[in-house]
Amino acid sequence: MAAKPCIPKGTRDFSPVEMAKRNYIFDTIRSVYHLYGFQQIETPAMEMLPTLMGKYGEEGDKLLFKIQNSGDYFSGLTDEELLSRNAPKLACKFCEKGLRYDLTVPFARYVVMHRDELTFPFKRYQIQPVWRADRPQKGRYREFYQCDADVVGSDSLLNEVELMQIVDTVFSRFGIRVCIKINNRKILTGMAEIIGEADKIVDITVAIDKLDKIGLDNVNAELREKGISEEAIAKLQPIILLSGANAEKLETLKLVLATSETGLKGVEETAFILGTLEGLGLKNEVELDLTLARGLNYYTGAIFEVKALDVQIGSITGGGRYDNLTGVFGMPGVSGVGISFGADRIFDVLNQLDLYPKEAVKGTQLLFINFGQCEAAFCLSILAKARAAGIRAEIYPDNSKMKKQMSYANAKGIPFVALVGENELNEGKVTLKDMATGEQRLLTPDELVETLSR
Amino acid sequence: MAAKPCIPKGTRDFSPVEMAKRNYIFDTIRSVYHLYGFQQIETPAMEMLPTLMGKYGEEGDKLLFKIQNSGDYFSGLTDEELLSRNAPKLACKFCEKGLRYDLTVPFARYVVMHRDELTFPFKRYQIQPVWRADRPQKGRYREFYQCDADVVGSDSLLNEVELMQIVDTVFSRFGIRVCIKINNRKILTGMAEIIGEADKIVDITVAIDKLDKIGLDNVNAELREKGISEEAIAKLQPIILLSGANAEKLETLKLVLATSETGLKGVEETAFILGTLEGLGLKNEVELDLTLARGLNYYTGAIFEVKALDVQIGSITGGGRYDNLTGVFGMPGVSGVGISFGADRIFDVLNQLDLYPKEAVKGTQLLFINFGQCEAAFCLSILAKARAAGIRAEIYPDNSKMKKQMSYANAKGIPFVALVGENELNEGKVTLKDMATGEQRLLTPDELVETLSR
Repeated sequence: MAAKPCIPKGTRDFSPVEMAKRNYIFDTIRSVYHLYGFQQIETPAMEMLPTLMGKYGEEGDKLLFKIQNSGDYFSGLTDEELLSRNAPKLACKFCEKGLRYDLTVPFARYVVMHRDELTFPFKRYQIQPVWRADRPQKGRYREFYQCDADVVGSDSLLNEVELMQIVDTVFSRFGIRVCIKINNRKILTGMAEIIGEADKIVDITVAIDKLDKIGLDNVNAELREKGISEEAIAKLQPIILLSGANAEKLETLKLVLATSETGLKGVEETAFILGTLEGLGLKNEVELDLTLARGLNYYTGAIFEVKALDVQIGSITGGGRYDNLTGVFGMPGVSGVGISFGADRIFDVLNQLDLYPKEAVKGTQLLFINFGQCEAAFCLSILAKARAAGIRAEIYPDNSKMKKQMSYANAKGIPFVALVGENELNEGKVTLKDMATGEQRLLTPDELVETLSR
Repeated sequence: MAAKPCIPKGTRDFSPVEMAKRNYIFDTIRSVYHLYGFQQIETPAMEMLPTLMGKYGEEGDKLLFKIQNSGDYFSGLTDEELLSRNAPKLACKFCEKGLRYDLTVPFARYVVMHRDELTFPFKRYQIQPVWRADRPQKGRYREFYQCDADVVGSDSLLNEVELMQIVDTVFSRFGIRVCIKINNRKILTGMAEIIGEADKIVDITVAIDKLDKIGLDNVNAELREKGISEEAIAKLQPIILLSGANAEKLETLKLVLATSETGLKGVEETAFILGTLEGLGLKNEVELDLTLARGLNYYTGAIFEVKALDVQIGSITGGGRYDNLTGVFGMPGVSGVGISFGADRIFDVLNQLDLYPKEAVKGTQLLFINFGQCEAAFCLSILAKARAAGIRAEIYPDNSKMKKQMSYANAKGIPFVALVGENELNEGKVTLKDMATGEQRLLTPDELVETLSR
């Protein structure tokens, strides 16, 4: 018969326990988004290829999953074109749709298509899977969820402040201790300006990032290697050696970047964000980190990244401000700021630190053992009462051997088992067994419901 | 610049209000599934094509969305093959993956792949989108959600009973009045047996279904037209004219089907299900309906369908028992029973009957008007308190004109607005405006939180 079935590489099935944990993550993030007035949208898994192509660089185009047109997808293709076997070029003839690669481009497309229905500033969140034909490897999947929140149509830095509060609240609720790192593209631009090496900003931040590991001399050597002039390196020293509290760093930066209007604007923005946050009692540290340079081409203002303190893992959340979300779709001037929680990594961190609350992975609370038809009929009436009281309860559907039924309770981690044999049936009562302690009590149905409702 | 973006036909964007309504539907169904001990799983959007092909008939194969292989998908194809332009055949060379078409086949694949980890009976639910390259039309989409629950690995009819309770509970919570129709494949087989027309069972049920509309004579005429013998038609009369309470129908069926062992088994099963449900106080009627014949080839026992009483619309939920979920993947003997809620139709019914509870579509409860930097800073501290108390609250991020800010509150349907101008700031208080009544009250931050927490 058929070969053993398998699933596409880089994709995953999620078991009940994994789903319960994932739902806990998504529900936590969702509920915090709601507290801050963000509204959910969803977009289709498939987008038209012109919506997706050219938005993620040449490499990204290759990583798009493309969907073959229905019907005769050969129509309009000459023999020559076919025999050219030009896979990338013909893919666009064979396919007009692709699976979304992230949530940002579909969001931009959404804003453009629904601009007349939307009230700006528009605060939206979106929790959906995305697909990338990346080479699968540990911790990297071809299907994974993103959890994005963005505010578009507002330049106010209060949005940045609130996003940092959201990050702080979410990780506090998870019980994950984090450091929230913040930087500003304008500060990086200023740095490049004052040392006259605007095009080497990535090399510079990469080198500075290694200070802790390789020491100052090696950082400077690396800068030289990348072709940065001695003069520029000298000017960079106060920035490389920048340390201390955020306020001190900002003071130094103000001096170093004094001749860069853009740089000073970045300092001012960062000072506002950090200063405002100071009064709001965040539970996690927010640190100005000049080596933070994610998505340099995309972000235009604040940049954020979150690191877990107690687990060795990459960034678990990131985001920043951008100037032109929708220009590529013909709607200029829509600026915004957003964050994205890395659900898969958060899942791993919560697992490693064993931080899932018991409530989050709670399944069935009560299993009725099935002793036969008459007993089962009585159990069903009690089950109805228990469920009406919100208790997750089930009856083993078959009159199987006791051992098998108890194994089922154990496998599902059900904490209480109800036994209704002949005696209980005659008395109209239930024996409730606590699976952890083994303790048994004879209860009326009402007492049973009351006991488990607590 | 770029052409106006669009989305693939048959797909949809969901706005914040639509999402809130859809989440209400999914959350309601999910919470009832939980009460009955069902556990959630998720499977990848993409399956290997051999998993999907041949499972939905020839027509179904054509309706699968196929995903083009990454890289050089021409490899191994001869010129002749290419120039044959045989679209269906070459699709399987170009593509090894497809988007799932329903949740049942992926579930079967899941059970086979995870058989060693699962404890049977396995009660799973799954709420995920599926994709079909159907011709889009009103109410039919190319991407839509299914909400399935199945119990596999148990023959007990208690599973059927509990699924009917689930249906009853879900629609009671929605406030949708329904009729739950039930039939049994074995009764239909019995009918075919006793009249000696086993292969015409579909024609027979289709004809009987029209009794109300066209009358007995026309039903019989249609049966004759379909080539059913006079003798068979005569034997069918008591079944066609079957009416009255379920118990009466079952009594008649017992007599009519007396010579069919299978038929009697079907009557017995149905009697057990209906009899057991009688004692459980369902809020909606359960009706034995012999014309119900959905998925005749798939189902082997009980068959269910749910009709809304107050809206003209097709079936909004359906399901039944099957004998062999996983045989096609080399794992025989896995029987089960399941239901599937039609989320899109339920969405329409709730809209038409205006049944969404206010709570379900509740967004932001409180908007702080932004009067400038100092006032906003004070507002942020109150916002932190309000959110800590679970109040969904936001501040308009920009210091825009009052009118624009109030329009924002109106557009988002925010019921309360907080005003903190110079006077309030000096007093450390907030003016709370009820947007429905226009009433304004001056409150301390604590009073504000208390007022809105109620």
